[in-house]
Amino acid sequence: MRDVICLGGGLNYAAAVVLAKAGKKVTLIEKDLNFLGGNCLHLGCIPSKNLLHRAKTVLESSEDVFTQKAKINVDKLLNKTFEKIKKNTNGVLMQLKAAGVEIIEGTGYVTDDGVEVNGETLQAKYIIIGTGSHPRIPEGIEVDNKKIITSKDVFSLTNLPKHIAIYGSGPIGLEFAGYFTALGSKVDLIYRHEHISKKIASEIVEKMEEQLKSIGVNLVANTSITKATVNKKVEMETNNGKLTADMLLVATGRIPNTWAIKTNKIKISKGIDTNDYFETSMQNVFAIGDVNAKLMLAHAARAQALNVANQILGKKEKLNLDNIPKFIYTMPLSYAAAGKMEGKKTIFTLNRLGISGAVLNSDNGMVILYTDEENFINGAEIFAPNAEEIIGIISAALAGEMDKDILQKAVFPHPTFSEAIDRVLRRVK
Amino acid sequence: MRDVICLGGGLNYAAAVVLAKAGKKVTLIEKDLNFLGGNCLHLGCIPSKNLLHRAKTVLESSEDVFTQKAKINVDKLLNKTFEKIKKNTNGVLMQLKAAGVEIIEGTGYVTDDGVEVNGETLQAKYIIIGTGSHPRIPEGIEVDNKKIITSKDVFSLTNLPKHIAIYGSGPIGLEFAGYFTALGSKVDLIYRHEHISKKIASEIVEKMEEQLKSIGVNLVANTSITKATVNKKVEMETNNGKLTADMLLVATGRIPNTWAIKTNKIKISKGIDTNDYFETSMQNVFAIGDVNAKLMLAHAARAQALNVANQILGKKEKLNLDNIPKFIYTMPLSYAAAGKMEGKKTIFTLNRLGISGAVLNSDNGMVILYTDEENFINGAEIFAPNAEEIIGIISAALAGEMDKDILQKAVFPHPTFSEAIDRVLRRVK
Repeated sequence: MRDVICLGGGLNYAAAVVLAKAGKKVTLIEKDLNFLGGNCLHLGCIPSKNLLHRAKTVLESSEDVFTQKAKINVDKLLNKTFEKIKKNTNGVLMQLKAAGVEIIEGTGYVTDDGVEVNGETLQAKYIIIGTGSHPRIPEGIEVDNKKIITSKDVFSLTNLPKHIAIYGSGPIGLEFAGYFTALGSKVDLIYRHEHISKKIASEIVEKMEEQLKSIGVNLVANTSITKATVNKKVEMETNNGKLTADMLLVATGRIPNTWAIKTNKIKISKGIDTNDYFETSMQNVFAIGDVNAKLMLAHAARAQALNVANQILGKKEKLNLDNIPKFIYTMPLSYAAAGKMEGKKTIFTLNRLGISGAVLNSDNGMVILYTDEENFINGAEIFAPNAEEIIGIISAALAGEMDKDILQKAVFPHPTFSEAIDRVLRRVK
Repeated sequence: MRDVICLGGGLNYAAAVVLAKAGKKVTLIEKDLNFLGGNCLHLGCIPSKNLLHRAKTVLESSEDVFTQKAKINVDKLLNKTFEKIKKNTNGVLMQLKAAGVEIIEGTGYVTDDGVEVNGETLQAKYIIIGTGSHPRIPEGIEVDNKKIITSKDVFSLTNLPKHIAIYGSGPIGLEFAGYFTALGSKVDLIYRHEHISKKIASEIVEKMEEQLKSIGVNLVANTSITKATVNKKVEMETNNGKLTADMLLVATGRIPNTWAIKTNKIKISKGIDTNDYFETSMQNVFAIGDVNAKLMLAHAARAQALNVANQILGKKEKLNLDNIPKFIYTMPLSYAAAGKMEGKKTIFTLNRLGISGAVLNSDNGMVILYTDEENFINGAEIFAPNAEEIIGIISAALAGEMDKDILQKAVFPHPTFSEAIDRVLRRVK
């Protein structure tokens, strides 16, 4: 009998590799082996960061000290990105094979008796479900994947639209607003509320909105699209009247892929219900990643997969999801956060740092630190160049359960943006 | 009577501000108030990072996915950099004034009786010497600041030389090799030994040399310049024959400014001799920063200044200089290190990371982690995009005296280069 079945070949592959290396008999089921590695690798963070990084170079070269701006061949960039993805996919396959994981290509379903795949029912001591998510499309919007598209279609767009509307100001919406603007498209960013985010501290939201405007994004607040159809142009009806654009990117969140569950033993609400240990209501069945809707991020899925693998290997330890960092690759400054945004709030603005002049618009940047009554670090939000790298310092401080005095012993190199962590610590009262 | 005299207005200003804010009567003596903030602000890391960051944008835009490369107006960039420096200098002055520091413009000397300045001798309970350093020029090289120059002259070079020789492969030499190459100069990097560094792990040195070659730098190893003079071109005699170039940048280290010491009570060897608490051999006289030759880095000077200020305020605590990070802004990948490079050595190469394709040549990158027998973290070396920000994670781990297991609880966002820290930790045996 198998020890473990991993259903879905996204970040679940990490659990499969670790378990197989530890001597377990592991089977991984994936509906399309070309898609090993999942959404992140194929249609998410890996291709997007390849595109965004180059778009940022273009944006940085539009500063007034440049006499000639960089120009990009999007076709070539996409081809290179696909090559990179292929290489990584192959890398995942090699890791699985080297570890001795049995790989089955086919659509799997969890039933009362095990996992049904290709007409067979397989059993195992443990099942780890990691079937991911798909884009949510609001009612009234007719996605044709050509003019009304979702994020995945961006990766085949070699001719960029002159004028694109983006619906939704979550990470995907904010990131692609930067991408299309940097490469010369006119962008309308449409979102339902007054501000682009309720989750990010208002001080930073204000600066993020300023940054979007400064690079040329048109912010369309308080607007819901009730209908969108293609008629040469994309025609949109909203609560604020009609809008048109050459293209509409729908970026209004994602829905867990719970269609793979064909048993009532597994409870589903927003996603598959799981407890703090990613256990579903069915015994020895776990759900990790987007499908449990706890935190739809690749590194969260990976951390969950490895946590479950450790449990199966007898090492049960709670994974603190609060501490898992998030980031949004806006440009030129990006946003990152980790920990809990509660307690005393101390703000340090980056324009006081020696390095601030070295990067476009960095006067917008800041670090917000949250500490508890005893000056232990609860969390932080960072809006800075390479915030996604700097937040690692906060991740380390959270892992070490550090208070202000201990982290303040750290010296950061000068001139960098990480120095802001030192400065904000000195301001905690 | 004064409580403290700070001699030299470089990073010493930080001590002056902290002490004055704490109620001490503080006098700061600086020979040129336009130079407040010191070498780093005026002729070092601040202007260089402004230049290097833009040069990196040019370099990144020369990748084959770009159809047009960014071009820079060096004149405009230098003007912007000077404005930035002026603003920061003014910021330092404002901070000193706001804290109530007495400021004296004049060249100060430490004598048996106190500090001599503008014909007067001033006394204080404590003296903090922070007089900095100046470039070392090897015998036989005749610097004219036009064709044979030092790093400070780079900041007035609006017409870049077609062909420049750089002598010395320390941080200054390596950084400007990238700068001039990115902006189109032909660069010969001349250095005395077989490799560019003995202090950096050989695995990384190899990759740094590869990177230099890949961007077009001509490496001239095992070569000492015995004579250099200007005769239309710069003519150099070396142990390997004659060389010529349009310009020669001399970057062969720096010498502590000990000329300000006019008393035998203060011992001088490499720089001013100090113990672990930056105390000189003269009672109540400290020396911080480049002049004590312990670690010639601005953030080290700042940390030392603040450490001495705390001692004067009654809080004596040893500053661990080993933990102070260092970095070299090479491009596209930069180098950073913190802690001790001893113990078990674990290497992770960045080409295994999802993000590696997003940045030019990042296949050269790696992280080397050093751990002790009990798996506590001794230190790390990083060769990666933005290594100077990522090293902050190691700084935090060192401050928290973390072992492998604790730091491994940290989750880093995906896809980033900081994920390499997680991966290298998992490989420690």
